[in-house]
Amino acid sequence: MADEKIEKSTDVAATRTEEEDGSSGIRTAETLLRLFPVGLCVAALVVMIKDSETNEYGSLSYSNITAFRFLVHANGILAGYSLFSAAFTAVPRPITMSRAWTFFLLDQVLTYLILAAGAVATEVAFLTYKGDVAVTWSEACGTYGKFCKQATASIIITFLVVICYVLLSLISSYRLFSKYDAPVGYHNKGIEIVDFGN
Amino acid sequence: MADEKIEKSTDVAATRTEEEDGSSGIRTAETLLRLFPVGLCVAALVVMIKDSETNEYGSLSYSNITAFRFLVHANGILAGYSLFSAAFTAVPRPITMSRAWTFFLLDQVLTYLILAAGAVATEVAFLTYKGDVAVTWSEACGTYGKFCKQATASIIITFLVVICYVLLSLISSYRLFSKYDAPVGYHNKGIEIVDFGN
Repeated sequence: MADEKIEKSTDVAATRTEEEDGSSGIRTAETLLRLFPVGLCVAALVVMIKDSETNEYGSLSYSNITAFRFLVHANGILAGYSLFSAAFTAVPRPITMSRAWTFFLLDQVLTYLILAAGAVATEVAFLTYKGDVAVTWSEACGTYGKFCKQATASIIITFLVVICYVLLSLISSYRLFSKYDAPVGYHNKGIEIVDFGN
Repeated sequence: MADEKIEKSTDVAATRTEEEDGSSGIRTAETLLRLFPVGLCVAALVVMIKDSETNEYGSLSYSNITAFRFLVHANGILAGYSLFSAAFTAVPRPITMSRAWTFFLLDQVLTYLILAAGAVATEVAFLTYKGDVAVTWSEACGTYGKFCKQATASIIITFLVVICYVLLSLISSYRLFSKYDAPVGYHNKGIEIVDFGN
């Protein structure tokens, strides 16, 4: 009996150390992956907001183009959420089922949002470069070259955010769904799982 | 010994029946969710391909607009994949780790693809309705009303496909990541799990 108890407590201690190492490693990685888009989103947002050009033919600003305004809003929302979620992830705390679901759903929705914003802005940037003769839309980049280049830079930064968010939604879906078979307190490949009800 | 064996085999039988019922229910649901987009994609594709209008001002066809061509291609790819994956899901077979990963990755990539195609087409449809004065892009729907309506119909159908694929990528990520803690042959809330390596 006594032997068994000692063995058990050694086991628990070993598992706990392993868990702490593993989860703190993953937590640090996830925190960085959530902090990184904060900078990227702010960069994409600032580059786009400062994007306007005036010349002898007239003037063109990001605010004249719906798709670019959408990109600015999406980047703003993601910068805020990234900062908030990084701060939340940085502090070690048990991952409850409702938190796992919240992060999972928000990560998914925001990945779709930033992808849609990036895709739409890419299409409009393409139209400003090439135009569309059949619909009588002329290209604008011959006249507004600087404007187009700056918009393209903002779009490229946005797609780096998309990559981060694809990875983050992978992590959060792993975190959520891998809980679904783990018994309470089960040692979960380096992720600390403590289940406080559903 | 003999008692233990009998108990074990009863357990196994009970688990197996439960597993078969559960997994066949989920399998049917997933097969239907994969078959449904086949029809939707073909509908969106046909509606868009047949979208052209000629009047006294000229003619406009979906093939003149890059975003709409992209939508047709994306719908074509998703129709093919949906049909193939529905056929694959319909036949009961063990879900190996590599199959779970393949379905997961393909479902994710195709969800992103069809979402991007839908978003881009929506933006261009918006521009054909409203135009953009600052970039000297005039609206086209005053002249090509039928063309615009038909394109909008195709886009709406595409967003139904997006909803199906968001659900499918949820299912396939559940299927993949819930395996990550389940021991071999573990009864997995109605999903049959047989682990062949990995």
